[in-house]
Amino acid sequence: MDEMRGKSRLMRGAPPAPEHQVTLANWRVEPFNRWSYSHVSEIVPSAQIPNNPDLITPLAAAPADFGRIDIRTADGRSSTVAEMLATTYTDGFLVLHKGRIAAESYAGALTRFRPHIVFSVSKSITGTLAGTLVERGELDPDAPIVTYLPEVAKSAYGDASVRHVLDMTVAIDFAEEYLNPESDFMRYRRATNWNPPLPGETPGDLRSFLAGLKRGAGDHGRQFHYVSVNSDLLGWILERAAQQTFADLLGERIWSPMGAEMPAQITVDRLGAPRTAGGISAGLRDLARFGELMRQDGAAQGRQLVPAAWIDDILTRGDKAAWARGDMDHFNPGGSYRSKWYILDDARQQFCAVGIHGQWIFIDRQSETVIVKVSSQPLPVDEAMDRLILAGLKAIAAALG
Amino acid sequence: MDEMRGKSRLMRGAPPAPEHQVTLANWRVEPFNRWSYSHVSEIVPSAQIPNNPDLITPLAAAPADFGRIDIRTADGRSSTVAEMLATTYTDGFLVLHKGRIAAESYAGALTRFRPHIVFSVSKSITGTLAGTLVERGELDPDAPIVTYLPEVAKSAYGDASVRHVLDMTVAIDFAEEYLNPESDFMRYRRATNWNPPLPGETPGDLRSFLAGLKRGAGDHGRQFHYVSVNSDLLGWILERAAQQTFADLLGERIWSPMGAEMPAQITVDRLGAPRTAGGISAGLRDLARFGELMRQDGAAQGRQLVPAAWIDDILTRGDKAAWARGDMDHFNPGGSYRSKWYILDDARQQFCAVGIHGQWIFIDRQSETVIVKVSSQPLPVDEAMDRLILAGLKAIAAALG
Repeated sequence: MDEMRGKSRLMRGAPPAPEHQVTLANWRVEPFNRWSYSHVSEIVPSAQIPNNPDLITPLAAAPADFGRIDIRTADGRSSTVAEMLATTYTDGFLVLHKGRIAAESYAGALTRFRPHIVFSVSKSITGTLAGTLVERGELDPDAPIVTYLPEVAKSAYGDASVRHVLDMTVAIDFAEEYLNPESDFMRYRRATNWNPPLPGETPGDLRSFLAGLKRGAGDHGRQFHYVSVNSDLLGWILERAAQQTFADLLGERIWSPMGAEMPAQITVDRLGAPRTAGGISAGLRDLARFGELMRQDGAAQGRQLVPAAWIDDILTRGDKAAWARGDMDHFNPGGSYRSKWYILDDARQQFCAVGIHGQWIFIDRQSETVIVKVSSQPLPVDEAMDRLILAGLKAIAAALG
Repeated sequence: MDEMRGKSRLMRGAPPAPEHQVTLANWRVEPFNRWSYSHVSEIVPSAQIPNNPDLITPLAAAPADFGRIDIRTADGRSSTVAEMLATTYTDGFLVLHKGRIAAESYAGALTRFRPHIVFSVSKSITGTLAGTLVERGELDPDAPIVTYLPEVAKSAYGDASVRHVLDMTVAIDFAEEYLNPESDFMRYRRATNWNPPLPGETPGDLRSFLAGLKRGAGDHGRQFHYVSVNSDLLGWILERAAQQTFADLLGERIWSPMGAEMPAQITVDRLGAPRTAGGISAGLRDLARFGELMRQDGAAQGRQLVPAAWIDDILTRGDKAAWARGDMDHFNPGGSYRSKWYILDDARQQFCAVGIHGQWIFIDRQSETVIVKVSSQPLPVDEAMDRLILAGLKAIAAALG
């Protein structure tokens, strides 16, 4: 894995040379993202998601070599796991097999002792946390959103339910345009503290932005339509329903009791609103622990942290028709999406969380495998890389059973 | 200690009511600081100072009750430790006696699992870290500063040595005006990301600010003159000398091997410059572990992390005459200041680190005691509270031996 370790000069020197400075203006741009994705809290203010050092779960090691496993993608490319890792800007890679570390490596600016941003894997973590509120009676997934957030009554969410937000089937007039600087999406990014304000711009905030989103055509619930703002709204719903900050809630209910070895972090806007759609950074081992929690039906260290019924619902109740009608069918033909997780293979109980720039938590229950990959791919979305990586993760799982 | 736990509405609710919102504009102002001092990274971008979860030092408990200990201040006030803690906005209080936790309590917005800002205690941590560079031959405390930082040649530091910075005896034209909004001090605060930029202001940065500081009258080395910028400069010197970021350096050489249970944090400016004069936040137990490291001559878990000679130098080579000529003699008559530590009592080997708004690490070797107190006092400097607290800490040490 040594070939992965970049000899970058980013942020080296005090001060770094101007061409090696990573700032709020360039942190999601290649090559600056290779540094920033392991240092997000230095760029964007971030809340701490507490762990509990007394409860850290030990992870035993059972090393295995996956590098030579062949990968064959649907479009006919042939590769190996080692090549896949080396060519997809991998910063961290960890395979848990039967709960033991079979492979673990760090590259770029990442170490074991540093959190890496997971972008939309944050959505899946938030969707899982939602289950803890459902079980406690704090949240009804079938209730109208306005039950919790009357302030969004006039927005796209005014006649939608929590379930529509969980499953990305809100009919909303919003496009996920990662690279268009004039778009609503950039206004959203500025509202979340992720981009610098425009000259003379009055700073916005995430919650006000969400309350102003416009209704799209058609019925809610019919079509999978991936928009990050839905997942930020879910975070807001959880905060209101549990009367606690998202960071504290996730820390108390999952991060601490599951045995995380580090606090995680989440970026916040200027009023403290957490970017639950994409702002979580976490240690590689803790992401693996979280994946293992999902594999183990929501139990860790002998305690049921997330209701098994909630995870079972994720695995079995995804709407394949809504997925097929949606805009990401090519990524996972015949699959579905439920409570912020992608269901890949019903028979193997194989599912995953995915974030832009190459973030993955992949779970395959048949082979008792959890794989985490964090990366700093140059483009937010790179379909060829996605296909290669997913084929690689599936090949590892297949090799393990 | 329950009476210390405020029923604050600060940052409660999503969003918080406007009058309960903590922002970059109000975070160091009462009552907002009660929340912000336990949540600094949510306000100011912060670098993570790594710990190592495999090396966490266990802390045994040996509970004792200090609340009824009488305190008598030099100006004749009489109180008790319990009253002192309750009236000085204590957020966290921990007594280690012979390395065991004799008392530990949390209030305000602090918990065991959350870092609290320590302001100028950061200076003492930085001064201690400097010793690790001296031992490795990376830093000569008697060398001219320009050996390391040629870019400050035209500033107040152009003819000063590292030792002058360590001991706050630089002749510099700069005043520590915490409350004057028109001052150079506020320009400094804006350069460090601690205050919002003025309308239309081109954002500054800490290192450029330091390189522009003006020489004061007189010789270096003669008079104790407390200016925070000296300690930021020391951090910059350490980064240049060790060719590593301050956060990584402190993590590798002290925070990880001493057995910290949490990462610490340090605020950074928009180019990543760490605010080593005051920007560290850390867990209460980890501050106690750091104090214990100082008490134990720089050794922890059987390893010598900081040279014993460096700590011995701190305890024995402070310049009492320079201190007596300085601007803080009233705080510690007959004392001295060395490598960013205040020497209180030579016979007892009693010394401390102090930060504005009530941050303390107090070490008394005679009684084998380390006391940490973190607070959110309304005023940066409150001499009456300082006197009361210091008398209280001394009374606890005296009661223990």
